[in-house]
Amino acid sequence: MKTMQIRILNGRTIAAREGESVYKTLKDNGVYLVASCGGKGVCGKCRVKILEGAGRIESSGKLRKRDIEENFVLACRTFPEADLLIEIPEESKLVIGDKIAAGKSRNLLEYLHSVEPLLSPMVRHVSLSLDPPTLENPVSDLERLKRALADRGLEGMRFSHGFLVPLARALREAGWKVSLSFAEDMQAVSLSPADKGTRYGIAVDIGTTTVVVYFIDCTDGSLVDVGVTYNSQMRYGDDVITRIVHATEGGGLQELRNAVVEDINDIIKPIMEKNNIIRDDIHSVVISGNTTMAHLFWGLDPATIREEPYIPTLNAFPRWKAGVAKLKVNHLAPVYTLPCVGSYVGGDIVSGVLASRLHKNAEIALFMDIGTNGEIAVGNNEWLITAACSMGPCFEGSGIRHGMRATDGAIESVRLDPRSFEPTLGVIGDSAPSGICGSGMIDAISELFFAGVIDQKGKFSRDLTTDRLKMGEEGPEYILHRGDLRDIVLTEADIENVIRAKAALYAGVSVLLKEVGLSLDIVERIYIAGGFGNYLNIDKAIMIGMLPDLPKEKFSFIGNTSIAGAYLCLLSEKMRKEAEEIAHKMTYVELSVLRGFMDEYMSALFLPHTDIGLFPSVKDLYHKDR
Amino acid sequence: MKTMQIRILNGRTIAAREGESVYKTLKDNGVYLVASCGGKGVCGKCRVKILEGAGRIESSGKLRKRDIEENFVLACRTFPEADLLIEIPEESKLVIGDKIAAGKSRNLLEYLHSVEPLLSPMVRHVSLSLDPPTLENPVSDLERLKRALADRGLEGMRFSHGFLVPLARALREAGWKVSLSFAEDMQAVSLSPADKGTRYGIAVDIGTTTVVVYFIDCTDGSLVDVGVTYNSQMRYGDDVITRIVHATEGGGLQELRNAVVEDINDIIKPIMEKNNIIRDDIHSVVISGNTTMAHLFWGLDPATIREEPYIPTLNAFPRWKAGVAKLKVNHLAPVYTLPCVGSYVGGDIVSGVLASRLHKNAEIALFMDIGTNGEIAVGNNEWLITAACSMGPCFEGSGIRHGMRATDGAIESVRLDPRSFEPTLGVIGDSAPSGICGSGMIDAISELFFAGVIDQKGKFSRDLTTDRLKMGEEGPEYILHRGDLRDIVLTEADIENVIRAKAALYAGVSVLLKEVGLSLDIVERIYIAGGFGNYLNIDKAIMIGMLPDLPKEKFSFIGNTSIAGAYLCLLSEKMRKEAEEIAHKMTYVELSVLRGFMDEYMSALFLPHTDIGLFPSVKDLYHKDR
Repeated sequence: MKTMQIRILNGRTIAAREGESVYKTLKDNGVYLVASCGGKGVCGKCRVKILEGAGRIESSGKLRKRDIEENFVLACRTFPEADLLIEIPEESKLVIGDKIAAGKSRNLLEYLHSVEPLLSPMVRHVSLSLDPPTLENPVSDLERLKRALADRGLEGMRFSHGFLVPLARALREAGWKVSLSFAEDMQAVSLSPADKGTRYGIAVDIGTTTVVVYFIDCTDGSLVDVGVTYNSQMRYGDDVITRIVHATEGGGLQELRNAVVEDINDIIKPIMEKNNIIRDDIHSVVISGNTTMAHLFWGLDPATIREEPYIPTLNAFPRWKAGVAKLKVNHLAPVYTLPCVGSYVGGDIVSGVLASRLHKNAEIALFMDIGTNGEIAVGNNEWLITAACSMGPCFEGSGIRHGMRATDGAIESVRLDPRSFEPTLGVIGDSAPSGICGSGMIDAISELFFAGVIDQKGKFSRDLTTDRLKMGEEGPEYILHRGDLRDIVLTEADIENVIRAKAALYAGVSVLLKEVGLSLDIVERIYIAGGFGNYLNIDKAIMIGMLPDLPKEKFSFIGNTSIAGAYLCLLSEKMRKEAEEIAHKMTYVELSVLRGFMDEYMSALFLPHTDIGLFPSVKDLYHKDR
Repeated sequence: MKTMQIRILNGRTIAAREGESVYKTLKDNGVYLVASCGGKGVCGKCRVKILEGAGRIESSGKLRKRDIEENFVLACRTFPEADLLIEIPEESKLVIGDKIAAGKSRNLLEYLHSVEPLLSPMVRHVSLSLDPPTLENPVSDLERLKRALADRGLEGMRFSHGFLVPLARALREAGWKVSLSFAEDMQAVSLSPADKGTRYGIAVDIGTTTVVVYFIDCTDGSLVDVGVTYNSQMRYGDDVITRIVHATEGGGLQELRNAVVEDINDIIKPIMEKNNIIRDDIHSVVISGNTTMAHLFWGLDPATIREEPYIPTLNAFPRWKAGVAKLKVNHLAPVYTLPCVGSYVGGDIVSGVLASRLHKNAEIALFMDIGTNGEIAVGNNEWLITAACSMGPCFEGSGIRHGMRATDGAIESVRLDPRSFEPTLGVIGDSAPSGICGSGMIDAISELFFAGVIDQKGKFSRDLTTDRLKMGEEGPEYILHRGDLRDIVLTEADIENVIRAKAALYAGVSVLLKEVGLSLDIVERIYIAGGFGNYLNIDKAIMIGMLPDLPKEKFSFIGNTSIAGAYLCLLSEKMRKEAEEIAHKMTYVELSVLRGFMDEYMSALFLPHTDIGLFPSVKDLYHKDR
């Protein structure tokens, strides 16, 4: 085995292993590249430039001729054969850590303190001082521990085999002064010397496309760090249906399970190292995800989710241990899985409703979570109804040529000069743009539509002459940004993906409201959740017919509520109870079997809609502009 | 890899693997040989004769020249290099199955029915008929199961990950008509089609020297089969102390754990095959063993048991699952471990007291379990006190030249003509003798002593001339039986081992009674437990000074009570509760730290005792005989 190194320009030097891709080697060392396809050479986003050295290049995927001439390679398809010096372009870097998260978690913590003065995480602690054993007092170690607990009023503690195996040594090494951690169900979790302080927990949002982890100090609720990565299950399929199909093929279920568990472990490892935190001190885990993601995480066969009558094995998950989940935290840490409602409305939506407080107010509100699946909930403190539709991963930056998550470098807003067709871009982090995120695409399509660059079907006008429009390898493209190395463009295929996604969402809302016999004007508030970062132009989203045409002040954009709800549940027993109540109260509607859904969807495949009368404000504006 | 076969004369033909001993190959195929050393080439008991073919012989251990000339080899040290035809002499065969067991279990079952009309095993069953899911009734599989349970008044069932993984398939394959098995703590154990019938359990006695398994049909309490083997931990040491030392050396604990778990798995495998029972249908397990054996079985570090102040990690064991124990039964089967009392009085003694009913009667009784450890308990329905002493494995057939367990072919009684010194032998099963068991040794030593063949110290008289005495390789020997192939003898070393064992036991009884201020004549009943089979000549045991000199009618010989108690606990909740009560009530005395124990032991190293006054009946007889 050769010893080789990968040196990153202006960065670290990492040992490389023969036969392991540059992408995998960097990932294992905490250097994350964008790879929305999960590293199978398809998305073309993990471009790196080789400055020195050589590697075996298995495929160049979607790289352009010019890229290849300039020595760009796909990191996931390049295998070092000698020491390498590489440059990682900004747009290829996956930003681990979310600037928004810190502020958001502070707000959540404030909210939490407003409903409960003290935090109530899933694991509690008690300090105990035991009498050392003597010939006169020879009771067993466990009995001694139990007696000390009884003195503190704690009876009925349950002790797993894994807890008791190291007990004898732990008690003696701690000099019989210990701190015992135990879960809500009175399962002992760990024993440490009495003077040891901090305990950690992780809140995890398993999205179909991305995985987000909040690493929390459970003693004060503060955010230690945030990690984000693409869900590696992407390599087996973009959406839940293709993954369910993969799961039912020999070994597929375990592959999918391992992929996402490894993603989580990969995220927490560098955070632990950076903050000097040992595995055993991570005492609790909350998992929030849709029903399929939750099944795959736990290795439960999701086949019946896909087959009529669409039945999951579980909606309410018992609290299993992290060791069972194969998470590399304390193996006795309880793992709380947010309860699901039905096959296509999962714990992420329960989490979202919890974070929105919709279930606590008298006003009727509409909740939408816009991700790879679009989930909709309607209701108030008395009733709740919910449904889901498949939108595809375009708003999470996948399936779009230059799509990316809403992190530094993402174009998040676009304005178009209606005469010159020149764009003005808003970029997250004020750096040079490296791609476009969901809100940027909504802006761009809306502006292109109103400027007449695209028609109601999303096709580029063949009559316009502007050098912002060019013919790309896959058809016409609009150049959003001219870069030194590459342009950032929006293709017709990109626009088509967005229109399909917004049509599915709009049709879902329409059909669900019809199901409960409500009209839109009864809705007093609309919560929009999703991975858009901190920005979504509601007006523009209405203009393309994605959101219903209601007064702007009724809308609240509330970000990634799946992780927000997971965070709340990690720290509060009250929140965990409310989550159960929400899941229990929600009525689940299976849209695909409702008559009318397909009609509504087909009608919504226009900008903004076949029936422009549903969008009076857009109609006015459209006519005023002409 | 060569393909080779081992053919057994008048028996099966078995595939052999290169590099695997004949002993191991036979064992893996359910053919058990006697190997009290656990297969390390020391005890010399796994002799087989090679009739055809050749093997690599690593060592011939204690085989005599004549044996070697006749092509006998040690199976544990012989590795096939070609097809072999072997003959297994009767004395080398380990008899799996105990003729006594069937009758004994019938008595126990009768007793059980007398205290509880219905059996109450650890796992119960309920038949459920679920409504198949529809679009109108789309609740999850688990919720559907829970609702059916609630209709039957069963709430609060707990579901492990392992139970739920196959749930979706199991429900559908059974057509929604199922039988759910669940443990006393409401843990779901298994789900099977509603028409499936029998459920099994195993009761296991883990002795320091032997492992006994009762394979039970839990529906009616009947004995399906019995299996016995030597505890393979023997290869790491004869007694608990050497095993504790081994456990603390790198990897030793896991080796010891694996050894005994494999022994149990090896015993149940052929029973399952013979009776066409699948692994998942074995729903419950009871383990009875001394404190060290219980710790080793569960992989708990036993180091502190050996170090003053002699503290076990656990005396009361939680109910863990068979999967945690690595037993090859249903991996969710609850495993009940009989509670221990202290470092050297374990669950086997609690089991013994339970089976003797000592704890239920007003009369003061003495309980002795004679095995590799000698444990003593004194008390009645109001109080119980207990202690242990180390006897060595001689009464279990180990450490004795021609020692064997009390099975077919064992010399279990001996009478000596005081003039000719010719013996009359009683052999179990009326076959030709192949060795001598514990009761036979007690008889033989008592007779040899009274005939003047050995003196008070157990040494052979140098003055006698009889052809029953010969000079062996290790000193003088008494020939019990002249065989065609080999003689069965008793050596001076054998006798020394027995005297040391009986001295430890007698000293233990004396010191323990002194500790509670009782004299022997207050004891109204003496229960003798141990692996003596169904025969122990009380008179002879008194004559050698092993048992106290009390009227014969006060003694009851009650056999292997460790397995009897395990059997009772497997089938009865009442018995499990009583076992907990016994363990809780018993006061444990550490003999080794009591002044006087060593003096008593030294005084007892004579036949019958230095102070013959303690044995008036022996004194009378001795004087009468002279």
